[in-house]
Order: sequence, then structure tokens, then C-alpha cells
Amino acid sequence: MNSADLLNQIAFIKEIDKVKYIQRKTKLFNSDRNENDAEHSWHLALMAIVLAQHSDEPIDVLKVLKMVLIHDIVEIDAGDTFIYDSQKNHSNTDEERLAANRIFGLLPKEQAEELIAVWEEFEAGETNEAKFAKAMDRLEPLLQNTSNNGGTWKEFGVGYKKVYEKKSVIKEGSKSLWNYAEGLINESVAKGILKDE
Amino acid sequence: MNSADLLNQIAFIKEIDKVKYIQRKTKLFNSDRNENDAEHSWHLALMAIVLAQHSDEPIDVLKVLKMVLIHDIVEIDAGDTFIYDSQKNHSNTDEERLAANRIFGLLPKEQAEELIAVWEEFEAGETNEAKFAKAMDRLEPLLQNTSNNGGTWKEFGVGYKKVYEKKSVIKEGSKSLWNYAEGLINESVAKGILKDE
Repeated sequence: MNSADLLNQIAFIKEIDKVKYIQRKTKLFNSDRNENDAEHSWHLALMAIVLAQHSDEPIDVLKVLKMVLIHDIVEIDAGDTFIYDSQKNHSNTDEERLAANRIFGLLPKEQAEELIAVWEEFEAGETNEAKFAKAMDRLEPLLQNTSNNGGTWKEFGVGYKKVYEKKSVIKEGSKSLWNYAEGLINESVAKGILKDE
Repeated sequence: MNSADLLNQIAFIKEIDKVKYIQRKTKLFNSDRNENDAEHSWHLALMAIVLAQHSDEPIDVLKVLKMVLIHDIVEIDAGDTFIYDSQKNHSNTDEERLAANRIFGLLPKEQAEELIAVWEEFEAGETNEAKFAKAMDRLEPLLQNTSNNGGTWKEFGVGYKKVYEKKSVIKEGSKSLWNYAEGLINESVAKGILKDE
């Protein structure tokens, strides 16, 4: 590691500060304040640490943490796409791939390649780690929306079927977390905070 | 893992949302917006990932990530103490220990014990992981203050000697990072954004 490498790493560290300005649609718990991507990523990391044992398959927790900590960095260039947006594909867009190459590309070559690969692995959602990381990413806003009396579901008129479909990704990572999540979704319909079309 | 454990974990996940409301004195990069503890912790985690190879001693990166991700959770109860506050001890207070017991205590017993131990290890600053985690915690605001024309140093009238003393903790974790940090401090004095008493 030479000092040119360190300067590249510092450039990356400064660049990713922008993640703190990217507003998500979802609000904090029991709140009307939007969450930003840095707060969201931090929360997913803590969730992965305390929920890791619910994974149905063995997982490398360090890899999962890397995934959740970096998964939204591409939004510096590509912006946050609302998961229930029907016009725009939520992930894996060319725009996001360009962003990954530019932003992780600030790092020394080997490190850039490693983090781009971790991000691609998360996006593909096929490995045990990616499945569990994605389960975290789906579970947090479910907890937030139920704490916020329907939250973005109400605000954007999203109904049961769409929510159930998006959230069922949790099942790929953990059956016990999915059982819990499914219960929350059904309870939300019963309470009238999620409309059943 | 039974479902009572999961409910305890969910209670913890909801409780730590409060970390997003704890304002630090330090501002974001090139900004006048205060950073909050969740954003700060996320940034330290990313720094630890990309700077790990600068550690002078071998480190367990997963342990370092746990440290930086949880290190400010106690501030939910104990509040943020400014590092240059001369009235109040910055860390390891009884207040913080009580907070750790209450907040991590929301988790299932074994997990609570593990995270309290990780937090205590960070606070003690004696292991390789704690030294490197503390180096991250000192380096981030140095980068922020230099990007902000003196930032909190100017705002609170903090001079070279105090800054040098607090930042030299970086040396315990990484000599190369300390070389870089020392250069930034000296440059700040030369530029007149850090006063040399």
C-alpha cells in the first residue's frame, strides 16, 4: 500500500459523504422525517448483526455487512428509485452500473474490483449473503411503515398484493423472518393501514 | 432461536432508530449541516473497510465494524459529548455504561452480553481492533474539519495542541494513517484554519 493508494481511498471516503443527502421515500420510525441512505445502510448493518442467526443458510456476516453498507452508494449518481415505482426498474440499471464503476473506481484498482463485485453480488441476489442482505433491505421499511400507520403504502396508494410480492424476497433469506413479516403484513390489512384490493 | 428472541431483537432494532436524531458537533464534508450519529457510524464502517490494510497489526475487520457501528448507541441515553469538552469526560462514564446495559439489554441475553463486551472493548481501546476503530473515529472529523475551513476547531476555539493530542490516538492503530493525519494538522496551521497557541 503506497501513499497514492491512500489518497485514492481518501477521495472515495469524501465522495461517499453524498450518500447522507439522498432521501428515501420511507420515513424514520414513528416519524414524518425521511430517512437518508446513510442512516438506512447503518440500520441494515445493525439488523444483519443482530438477526444473522435467522438466516436459513450459513452466511459470512462480514460479506453481508459490506453489501448493506455499500448497496446504495450508486445512488449518488443514479438517485433513489422508489421500490413501488412502476415506471422505472428498481435495480441493476445501466445507470447504476456506470455509477458503481465511477464511484468505486476512485479506490485503488483491486479494492474497486472487490467492492464492485460485492455490489453486483448483492444486486444479483443469488448467494446466501445477498439473499440475507436483501431480506434486511425489505424488512426495515416494513417495520417503518407499520410504525407509521401505513407510511409510504398510504402516501403512494400501494396495496397488499404489491407489498406482499416485494416483501416475499425476505423468504429467500430467512423463513422465520418471513413468518414474522407476513404476520405484520396481514395485521396491517386487518388494521386498515394497508389496503386489500 | 425462538420467537421471543426475535421480538426482543425487533425491539432493539426499533429503539436504535433514535441514533439518527443525535446531532454531533461536526458538520458533513464541505457543509454546514451537522452530522448525526447514524451517518457518522456508517461512514466509519466504510472507512474501516477501505482502510483496513493500513492497520499496523492484523485485525478482525468484522469486529472493527461491530465496534464502529454500535459505538455511539449509548448516546441515545447519555447524549453526545463534544470531544474537546473540558467539563465532561468524553467516554466510559457511568451514564454510558447504564445506557449500554439498558439498550443492548433489549436483546436476547447472549447477544446483549456480546455487544456490551464489544462496546467495552472499543471504549478501553487496548486491542488491535479497538485501536483501529478509534483511529477511524478520530480521522473522520479531521477530514471534515479540514474540508470545512476549520469547522468545529474554529467554531469552538480549539487550538493545535489539543487537536494534536486527541488525534494522536490514530498513531496507535496505524502509523501511515497518522503520518497523513499529522500532515493535515500541520497544513491546517499553515493555512490559518487551526490556531497555533
